[in-house]
Amino acid sequence: MKVIKVNLKNNSYPIIVGTGILAKLGPYLRKLKTGSDLYIITNPFIKAKFGNILEKSLKNSSFTLRFHLVPDTEASKSLARAAKILADLSAYDQKKKIVIAAFGGGVVGDLSGFVASLYKRGTPYIQLPTTLLAQVDSSIGGKTAVDLAQGKNLAGTFYQPKLVLSDIDLLQSLPRRQLSSALAEVIKYAVILDPLLFVYLEKNLSRILAKNKACLEFIVARCASLKAAIVSRDEVERLGLRTILNFGHTLGHAIEAAGDFKTYNHGEAVGLGMLCAGSISVSLGLLKEKDFKRIEKLILRAGLPARIKGLDFNKIIASHYHDKKFSGAKNKFVLASGIGRSTIKMNIPLDLIREALRERF
Amino acid sequence: MKVIKVNLKNNSYPIIVGTGILAKLGPYLRKLKTGSDLYIITNPFIKAKFGNILEKSLKNSSFTLRFHLVPDTEASKSLARAAKILADLSAYDQKKKIVIAAFGGGVVGDLSGFVASLYKRGTPYIQLPTTLLAQVDSSIGGKTAVDLAQGKNLAGTFYQPKLVLSDIDLLQSLPRRQLSSALAEVIKYAVILDPLLFVYLEKNLSRILAKNKACLEFIVARCASLKAAIVSRDEVERLGLRTILNFGHTLGHAIEAAGDFKTYNHGEAVGLGMLCAGSISVSLGLLKEKDFKRIEKLILRAGLPARIKGLDFNKIIASHYHDKKFSGAKNKFVLASGIGRSTIKMNIPLDLIREALRERF
Repeated sequence: MKVIKVNLKNNSYPIIVGTGILAKLGPYLRKLKTGSDLYIITNPFIKAKFGNILEKSLKNSSFTLRFHLVPDTEASKSLARAAKILADLSAYDQKKKIVIAAFGGGVVGDLSGFVASLYKRGTPYIQLPTTLLAQVDSSIGGKTAVDLAQGKNLAGTFYQPKLVLSDIDLLQSLPRRQLSSALAEVIKYAVILDPLLFVYLEKNLSRILAKNKACLEFIVARCASLKAAIVSRDEVERLGLRTILNFGHTLGHAIEAAGDFKTYNHGEAVGLGMLCAGSISVSLGLLKEKDFKRIEKLILRAGLPARIKGLDFNKIIASHYHDKKFSGAKNKFVLASGIGRSTIKMNIPLDLIREALRERF
Repeated sequence: MKVIKVNLKNNSYPIIVGTGILAKLGPYLRKLKTGSDLYIITNPFIKAKFGNILEKSLKNSSFTLRFHLVPDTEASKSLARAAKILADLSAYDQKKKIVIAAFGGGVVGDLSGFVASLYKRGTPYIQLPTTLLAQVDSSIGGKTAVDLAQGKNLAGTFYQPKLVLSDIDLLQSLPRRQLSSALAEVIKYAVILDPLLFVYLEKNLSRILAKNKACLEFIVARCASLKAAIVSRDEVERLGLRTILNFGHTLGHAIEAAGDFKTYNHGEAVGLGMLCAGSISVSLGLLKEKDFKRIEKLILRAGLPARIKGLDFNKIIASHYHDKKFSGAKNKFVLASGIGRSTIKMNIPLDLIREALRERF
């Protein structure tokens, strides 16, 4: 078991990573002294699969609990759904000491954090991520969101949880496609920040794909540490330090959007986006060709696509122009300047972007 | 003209109070360098009355602007309305540099701040309060909110504006009932914090009720300074310093709620709540009887009710138990310990509360 601290003065919190730790949530939560009435937002699948572990642990530590189920789709990340939860929560909350728990993947995490940040202008909440993607990325950092018709995550807040508890055991039932997709973000951390993690991935990728618990615990804890360090220095994305976490996301978002979020999932699109960003990095002389090949090989071995199928080239380019991060500049790219090193460049010539994207067709 | 600074490190902002200053908004806003595309949330009445002043000033300084009208009722403070605005705003915002402006009273201010805090996880916004209540109170401090079925302001955020501009000229058309209602909050500031303001009010209340501009400017600037000082020390209500601003609000909210927010408006209910809190303060030996009489006289002279009519005594007591501020304690009261001095007490005996409320029937 590893404990990682996110240092944010009054908003600091621990990330606990380990096996079999969901069963110990009750005692962990008691120590936090935040409240005794758990309002657990989850989806029917997760509740059926792991709800009893959670329930037993909490009841043994004298917590009350209530489940609120949301459908397990991106459509749940809506203002309408947030309104439904807030209505139910406020009707339920009669003189209670509410703690909200996000028990699920990224959708449940983003939505629950959003609701928690709004209810009574901020109610304590904890993250209990059940997918690899949520454990290595979305549960950490306090970005909450719902989608608007015009785009994903267009409404949200910065609001930190009181605890993130990542139980590695929950990943054993994760479908292969979700595992691969999450590995895109793990590879991202390695490329932009951590050459040792990159080497670890090269050595252990087969074991990771076989869901070896020690390997999964290592990568979850390592990614959590990397993200915690960045978030600790730039909580609300004022300094731009968090920007490097968008490596692969600029064209990744465009690829996701061009396929209406159906053709490729987030991780697959980010994998493709990293390949494009890698090509641009090579073209600009920032990254050696042989390092690019190592990145490409790792992405392929993770089971991620390296070629775009079924999408329109021009639609991706058009989507790319609508990125919400671009205000002011033509575009902004995080580029790799070596394995484990990154840099931010504005206004990359469109020809270079088109060329990098063309290679993926 | 007076400029008051709210000191909140990265979230600091000026409050400008004066006559005829709405016409100078363009130049003020240019100096802030926040963005050039104004998205103005207002109601049809305010737009018809003052929209042209705003439009002229902004266009002369090369801003673009778009109005979004909401009905002038508390019902506009809803998640549904916030969702409508967010949908319109995100459709409108194609590569713009948006600044949201709240142009109206408390409803427009709370709703606009809420939307601004959520859009892209925080978009710059300014407050252009058009009522005395908004100028002395709700536009300052960064509390944003919408109502839920279970109660007022149950969903919201802490999010600071970039500028508050209070043009005293806009108050000339304010109906008498709204003026009186706002004076309840002004009297509140005087009782809990500022003996000199209390004496000023005793001397100048007739002139204030006649909308003398110098007097209005004085009280708006004074109240803004008092609130700014408190907010500067306790931005997100962590230290409890903001709690004293709830003087008169504990029973005030219960009185409002018992009348379904129709019998008495907020200021009238706060006036009655202050009288109850004053009685309790006298009963506990904190406040002299003669000081209580001065407070009571001022409230009466402001045109506020001193007796409750058309409400059920027990319904008020029942509503009081649902106050969202009570988590843990039976109740929490801000009490006057002199003119210009206040103290916070928990778990006041119910007999004392009933007795104080009974005096108002």
